[in-house]
Amino acid sequence: MDAHANVHGPMPLTTPEDIHTLLAPVHAGLQRVEIKMKTIDSRLFAPLSAAFVDLIGRGGKRLRPALVLMAAEFNDEIQTTPCYDKVISLAASVEMLHTATLVHDDVIDDALLRRGAPTLNVEWSKGATVLAGNYMFGRATQFSAETGSMRVIRIFSETLQIIVDGELRQLFARNQFHQEKDNYYRRIYAKTASLFCAATEGGAALSNLPEGDVKQLRDYGYNLGMAFQIVDDILDFTGDEHSLGKPAGSDLRQGTLTLPFFYWLRTHPRPEAVIAELEEHADARDEGDEQGWIDAANRIAAQIRTSDAIEAARAESHEFLARAKQNLTGLPDNVYKASMLGLCDFVEQRTY
Amino acid sequence: MDAHANVHGPMPLTTPEDIHTLLAPVHAGLQRVEIKMKTIDSRLFAPLSAAFVDLIGRGGKRLRPALVLMAAEFNDEIQTTPCYDKVISLAASVEMLHTATLVHDDVIDDALLRRGAPTLNVEWSKGATVLAGNYMFGRATQFSAETGSMRVIRIFSETLQIIVDGELRQLFARNQFHQEKDNYYRRIYAKTASLFCAATEGGAALSNLPEGDVKQLRDYGYNLGMAFQIVDDILDFTGDEHSLGKPAGSDLRQGTLTLPFFYWLRTHPRPEAVIAELEEHADARDEGDEQGWIDAANRIAAQIRTSDAIEAARAESHEFLARAKQNLTGLPDNVYKASMLGLCDFVEQRTY
Repeated sequence: MDAHANVHGPMPLTTPEDIHTLLAPVHAGLQRVEIKMKTIDSRLFAPLSAAFVDLIGRGGKRLRPALVLMAAEFNDEIQTTPCYDKVISLAASVEMLHTATLVHDDVIDDALLRRGAPTLNVEWSKGATVLAGNYMFGRATQFSAETGSMRVIRIFSETLQIIVDGELRQLFARNQFHQEKDNYYRRIYAKTASLFCAATEGGAALSNLPEGDVKQLRDYGYNLGMAFQIVDDILDFTGDEHSLGKPAGSDLRQGTLTLPFFYWLRTHPRPEAVIAELEEHADARDEGDEQGWIDAANRIAAQIRTSDAIEAARAESHEFLARAKQNLTGLPDNVYKASMLGLCDFVEQRTY
Repeated sequence: MDAHANVHGPMPLTTPEDIHTLLAPVHAGLQRVEIKMKTIDSRLFAPLSAAFVDLIGRGGKRLRPALVLMAAEFNDEIQTTPCYDKVISLAASVEMLHTATLVHDDVIDDALLRRGAPTLNVEWSKGATVLAGNYMFGRATQFSAETGSMRVIRIFSETLQIIVDGELRQLFARNQFHQEKDNYYRRIYAKTASLFCAATEGGAALSNLPEGDVKQLRDYGYNLGMAFQIVDDILDFTGDEHSLGKPAGSDLRQGTLTLPFFYWLRTHPRPEAVIAELEEHADARDEGDEQGWIDAANRIAAQIRTSDAIEAARAESHEFLARAKQNLTGLPDNVYKASMLGLCDFVEQRTY
């Protein structure tokens, strides 16, 4: 239990970009979340159990459940109360909901990108994948119910709807090259920041923090989430294929416009010509000229990558992170606050 | 408010198969459920709103929400208490969950049956359809949260998981011609009867009925639901394309084995030869011989249609319905009980 020692000792923050160090104060709680997520009813259909554990195991940094745990810790007695079980349930619920949406994203993206005639196996597994995601929604709902808190259950069901609404907006906004920059903020709130908010607000509320602190922690979640997604969208241009796990520029090739694109377009001498070019290639793509579209999208992505738009987008994520740090000023100093401040630096510096 | 008059007056049950007459005692409640289901946050993405109202509008008989309302009515003061709003919420939740699974079923079936190269539009709308279903899951969860009852919320989240588990079992059981008949009961419980149970148990629990009555109403829901699905599976063989909305025998052509098949196989002189034939044609189908498979499935479906297996399956649904009626014997006589008894006859006699 090395991690547990960190909860009470000083935490070295010499490498703020090291996510493992930042999450160390909640390591023990995260292990309980992990076990809870992977515990499966033995009556469950066996192939689903296997797929389920596999899909959950592929999980990332567990940032969202960590935010639940950290927010709850501002009640410094929470770990000694029975209420801590409810905090664990919420953390598992939030991560399960996140995983469910990722599983369905694969189906949705796959559907969009796959052009050839699908094999039966591919199609079969697509149906099964939809159902596996649905099962995760059910588990997430169950975990949120286990908190026994009507407030948390309400936050959970509202967030689920906001996320889906955001995903649909993103789906329909694809290849809409005339859209306003404001659309972007609404989409990333729905898609990403809403769940960050739900995590910190829910954790704080379960811990019975004063309402003012709950609000500050909620806003911290919002600002951190907005910055997180902006940085994600920047990395899609600047990252390399190895660290991204996909070729750079994939958002634009999917017809999804993100913040760097909007900044780049704003300083372009002939923005209307760019939009006309994109529309033309998108139309040609729909007629079968896939390569022409890919070449055009890659050409523009390369221009954006080396333009001032990247720095402008970075400045904006920096503003969100400054606001996130500001949200924490009224809260007591402890290792959790140190980690939450460190997470802001992590988001700013992350390269994957 | 003609329907409202029926609540207090005698209800003619000369035509038990007339579902509208049977549901008349809860007509006013069902209208509130309908309004609740179609009420949409104005901030919702507009194309989703439109699709959403359309998908809900295509709804069927509203049998499941009617069961919630009827079960709740055994507390004869329930309509005069604020708790009735919660009953409406549960009824809307149950029907929304049902609709969400139907929306996803379309995606799953479509994925399985469509063989040619899909167009972009078809694929696009498939992704959007998955998301529309997810939005409905979110609404259903929200409605169940509005009941404020931890018991109901728990029933809801467990039922969601049972349904998904059942759908996956059904998906994976396709083309498994060696399966046991027992699999069938487990599948139809998960897929259909579990939600009928949730409706009657939840409605009764919200109405604060004595625990013994809650259990009887739950069991009524179980038995009615099992019979409902068995009759559905019989109609897939005996119905005509016009009333079914799909060609007869479609379950078997999808490789799904139902009760009439199991009874037919049991009396077949050479069951192993039938299974071998099905396996051979299924393999040939996967190699491209679609027509050979369809011809074989249609041939067997025609034999089942005119065999004693239909009557044997009908006898079994009759037994479930007799048990459902038995479950109601201890409950007070009123128009709701009369309708619930009538629903058993409706299920037995229905032809669509």
